[in-house]
Amino acid sequence: MSRLLQSYAGGHWFTATDAGTALLNAVDSSEVARISSTGLDIAGMVDYARTVGGPALATLTFHERAAALKALGLALMSGKDEFYELSVKTGATKRDSAIDIDGGIGTVLSYASKAKRELPNDTIILDGDVERLGKQGTFLGQHIYTSRRGVAVQINAFNFPVWGFLEKLAPAFLAGVPSIVKPASQTAYLTELVFRRIIESGLLPEGSVQLLAGSAQDLLDHLGGQDSVAFTGSAATAALLRAHPSVLNEGVHFTAEADSLNASILGADAAPGTPEFDLYVKQLVTEMTAKAGQKCTAIRRALVPVDRVDDVISAVSERLSRVVVGNPEMEGVTMGALASTDQRDEVLESVRKLCKSADIVYGSLDISSEAGAFMSPVLLRAKDSRAPEVHEVEAFGPVSTVIGYSGTAEAIELAALGKGSLVASVVTKDSALARDIVLGIAPYHGRILVLNSDDAKESTGHGSPLPVLVHGGPGRAGGGEELGGIRGVLHHMQRTAVQATPEILTAVGNRWYPGTARTVTDVHPFRKNLAELRIGDTIVGGPRKVTRADIQHFAEFTGDTFYAHTDPEAAAANPLFGGIVAHGYLVVSLAAGLFVDPAPGPVLANFGVDNLRFLTPVKADDSLTVTLTAKSITPRTSANYGEVRWDAVVTNQNDEVAASYDVLTLVAKPESE
Amino acid sequence: MSRLLQSYAGGHWFTATDAGTALLNAVDSSEVARISSTGLDIAGMVDYARTVGGPALATLTFHERAAALKALGLALMSGKDEFYELSVKTGATKRDSAIDIDGGIGTVLSYASKAKRELPNDTIILDGDVERLGKQGTFLGQHIYTSRRGVAVQINAFNFPVWGFLEKLAPAFLAGVPSIVKPASQTAYLTELVFRRIIESGLLPEGSVQLLAGSAQDLLDHLGGQDSVAFTGSAATAALLRAHPSVLNEGVHFTAEADSLNASILGADAAPGTPEFDLYVKQLVTEMTAKAGQKCTAIRRALVPVDRVDDVISAVSERLSRVVVGNPEMEGVTMGALASTDQRDEVLESVRKLCKSADIVYGSLDISSEAGAFMSPVLLRAKDSRAPEVHEVEAFGPVSTVIGYSGTAEAIELAALGKGSLVASVVTKDSALARDIVLGIAPYHGRILVLNSDDAKESTGHGSPLPVLVHGGPGRAGGGEELGGIRGVLHHMQRTAVQATPEILTAVGNRWYPGTARTVTDVHPFRKNLAELRIGDTIVGGPRKVTRADIQHFAEFTGDTFYAHTDPEAAAANPLFGGIVAHGYLVVSLAAGLFVDPAPGPVLANFGVDNLRFLTPVKADDSLTVTLTAKSITPRTSANYGEVRWDAVVTNQNDEVAASYDVLTLVAKPESE
Repeated sequence: MSRLLQSYAGGHWFTATDAGTALLNAVDSSEVARISSTGLDIAGMVDYARTVGGPALATLTFHERAAALKALGLALMSGKDEFYELSVKTGATKRDSAIDIDGGIGTVLSYASKAKRELPNDTIILDGDVERLGKQGTFLGQHIYTSRRGVAVQINAFNFPVWGFLEKLAPAFLAGVPSIVKPASQTAYLTELVFRRIIESGLLPEGSVQLLAGSAQDLLDHLGGQDSVAFTGSAATAALLRAHPSVLNEGVHFTAEADSLNASILGADAAPGTPEFDLYVKQLVTEMTAKAGQKCTAIRRALVPVDRVDDVISAVSERLSRVVVGNPEMEGVTMGALASTDQRDEVLESVRKLCKSADIVYGSLDISSEAGAFMSPVLLRAKDSRAPEVHEVEAFGPVSTVIGYSGTAEAIELAALGKGSLVASVVTKDSALARDIVLGIAPYHGRILVLNSDDAKESTGHGSPLPVLVHGGPGRAGGGEELGGIRGVLHHMQRTAVQATPEILTAVGNRWYPGTARTVTDVHPFRKNLAELRIGDTIVGGPRKVTRADIQHFAEFTGDTFYAHTDPEAAAANPLFGGIVAHGYLVVSLAAGLFVDPAPGPVLANFGVDNLRFLTPVKADDSLTVTLTAKSITPRTSANYGEVRWDAVVTNQNDEVAASYDVLTLVAKPESE
Repeated sequence: MSRLLQSYAGGHWFTATDAGTALLNAVDSSEVARISSTGLDIAGMVDYARTVGGPALATLTFHERAAALKALGLALMSGKDEFYELSVKTGATKRDSAIDIDGGIGTVLSYASKAKRELPNDTIILDGDVERLGKQGTFLGQHIYTSRRGVAVQINAFNFPVWGFLEKLAPAFLAGVPSIVKPASQTAYLTELVFRRIIESGLLPEGSVQLLAGSAQDLLDHLGGQDSVAFTGSAATAALLRAHPSVLNEGVHFTAEADSLNASILGADAAPGTPEFDLYVKQLVTEMTAKAGQKCTAIRRALVPVDRVDDVISAVSERLSRVVVGNPEMEGVTMGALASTDQRDEVLESVRKLCKSADIVYGSLDISSEAGAFMSPVLLRAKDSRAPEVHEVEAFGPVSTVIGYSGTAEAIELAALGKGSLVASVVTKDSALARDIVLGIAPYHGRILVLNSDDAKESTGHGSPLPVLVHGGPGRAGGGEELGGIRGVLHHMQRTAVQATPEILTAVGNRWYPGTARTVTDVHPFRKNLAELRIGDTIVGGPRKVTRADIQHFAEFTGDTFYAHTDPEAAAANPLFGGIVAHGYLVVSLAAGLFVDPAPGPVLANFGVDNLRFLTPVKADDSLTVTLTAKSITPRTSANYGEVRWDAVVTNQNDEVAASYDVLTLVAKPESE
């Protein structure tokens, strides 16, 4: 008997108390492993996540979590060979395994890098600008995101045992929410191996990840309003989970990513002989055969102009005829097995349903006598563009249907008949056509790829979700949203509007808000290193008078002789100025002269300026004062400096604001650090 | 017999074919109106919204929709007296009516103004930054939001017949999604009146709003993945709707805003005698009595330090003793009737349940012999801080329970026992305490108010959702999110990741993306008015050499003598520069000199700069070239100019980017416009 897969629960590897169910090799139907969760303390796992994993994650900032993910990604990448070896048993070719394994680890690394660049080195995230809720400025509103205090349950599909689990895990981990990973049984042996390496690495805090191999049993019964379930799989199972009392009554956050009838639209301009026609054909064949078509993002509906249907079918058939189906370990094989013979039988059954309204034009339903889950790619041609089956029945294998359309409006309508898809592609070189189709079908899609000869080289393809772009789709596609960079992190956090005084918002948000007392000390804040500097530290510089001569000189020196700075008569006619005004750039240049501390010190550089607005025109002989206040301090985890954002306000002699902006500087840590 | 309320469906007022059900005056139980939807073509309403309302809205930009909302808000405000008159029959005092009527209309106006300021004058919204998906820059990703092609069904609660309907309508309308408004029967006569004035105004496009008075019948059966249902009401009804097959299987977007057991926490610092203690007591009484406590945001749980329980009870009781309950039309009355006697009986029943674990310390369950739905405010004292009833049973009337806590951690724990609430308030002057409590309870709340003597004057109060802040909460509060400014608009739109060449993204997004061909013409783009200017119009200026003397002079002139610009030895030691560099402000000042066209023309002013980053240091004798390209063009609807955002890139002689930023200008429309 083969090995019984283990769960990782409550800090220990757990072996089920019964023999479990056999998991079969897709290539030869031999037994790979067994699986069972009998005897597993499911409630204990939920409790462990909440009481051990959550609190452990809460002690880490986003940057620290990102560093852990980066280390993990690098560790997994360096040991990926054994994952590839085992992956063959799922029926995957090397190319298929790359999508799953490198794709999954790459997602972890992408999240690590996104979080470091786009999130604060903190445990909460500020959402949007502050809202002034009263005229005096004593009452402000700020939206914040905080980590949910529950567990993220991740129920994955069989087709991507590595990517599917890592793409859900990484955003939850960054959000500070512990995960319980439940792989689909069929390919759980590969998930278990990767998971084992994660635990062995010791890189993730105890309790932050647990593995549930086998039936989820009563897992959902233990969840509540701080927990979430992210499900990938069939629409039918999604509906079942959505109807669970915990979801209906307890506020469990439920999202689904379901297979959908994704369309690929051939633009009217892409006639045979154009590079776009070839790209269309090539992409369709790739999507049919990669993972033997077992991708929720694969092209199921090939929408082509009616007068191009024959051309497309013949070109696709020609290409399909070169596909070699077989054991992925054999030389020359380009399409492997489906995940199991059961799975294959389901696909064949779906093709039979499709045949009610479509004819097979390439391939057949005959299966070889081999023990493995092999089948030929099957291309169909719709008898009628609007026949329900072709827009509703999904054959989750190497199967697509060519459907003719007449005109852009019909192409959009047909795409929408899928009732919501994960992705669509449009192959065209025509920008106006691309715009019409994209805007027409966008409400029905989570992602749209526009492919042509200009981006083909760099295109990541119709079927590839990317960590930086959202993955998911409305309606039939499940209505969920995953990935999308930081968007995927926020899905695990609660958005809360906080109404308070500036002082209290500053304390809550670790960011200085206008209205909070400024700290003016004897020491210039530019002389303080990152450890010494405090939010609210302020330098006031000025006043400095701006003379007509200054303006004139600046115009000559820089060449910016815009009439509002140089021609009194013309400037007087300007509806906004009514006379000569100083250059905005002169105002901020002089302001820097007023706040800069010249000698070498911890401030290394001014690397940028944000949100600069010129509010009151500066006229000749106005006197400028600048107030610069440390607004946020972000130490870098892996450098001997950090970023400091300063609030800058330039006022004139009447206390009117001439300019407001953020100054961005790099400031050194103490030398000892 | 009283008047039968009408529905507005398919462009006509509809009268039910039966006599309907009587709606009673809350004050004296006399009949106000009757209600029924018998005979109404519900499927026809959905179809009308999709085929007439949606397409009509799609022809308007966000700014045009905002203008319509503004006009509507002003029209309703000017005719609000009749709404106040009718509102009395719901049992509302003048103050209660203001929350509902002025609050509702104010929300419409707030949305109009937010949309004009924060949304583009377009029909799609770009979400986040562009993602470079390949090294060459030929393949980019951009998230966009487009309007759903369905209908927004809004099922409102009885307590706010005006605000409840307008706060859901305004964001949907702005999003370009037509609404079907279904008021709670009990107070539908007031909704119907306001709705009638909206239709009469002719300000909203045909089909963009419909009214369903009476039973919703099989409305949900007709909905799909492009439709949404926003429900406000009880958790039980929310669960029922969430289990509807259209929601479970068809991807209908469902959000709920349910009553919750909102807490108000008295800080340990707020001892009797402090202004905060008084604010706490006053706010609690306000929340108990406004709308006779029939607010989903009212305070149900008063969490106070155990040693302050007696003080709070006695101060609150003293204040409650001054409340005058009665017919809101009578002089001196400060608390009106509940919505109906049935409603009051439900509240009394809930108080009896609460009495299992709490004692009544003010008020009683006795009801007067009057016909109206009156009752006394009731204050309870929990026998045990963790008794389940006080955290679970909601009496939707003038009822609150005082619960003692020991220490900050317990206050947070007790607040969380509500299992998710719309709002909590914390009354404290202590910033550190406020931070601990806010971050501790945020995951369980949609909104948190921190009240003290500094913001009390401007505070809008515990119970008031604001259009600019999110309203909704996790778990028991329904898990939904409404309002929050533009966030509430986005909830009605689909987010889609678009992957394409820069050229095609520029066409889709109406915004220039780097990599798209620039248009350099003989005419300087600053000489083109808003109608002549095209996205992609470009001016290239330079080269200009920056000499050591320029840097020295700029340092002296501006006073910015930072060592990296003035001291060769010290500058050489700077880890980022390794030698004298030009001021960043000098670089952008010179760049302006290279691209500005001096003579008067359509460009009125440079009003700001965004996202300025200094990327490659500029050294002495470097030659700078600037490329300025029109990136987006936003005509203002109500001014003779608009905003133009320019992409600015400054490069050195080696084509390295010295600085990149956006220049913001105001540009005039053609004189004839």
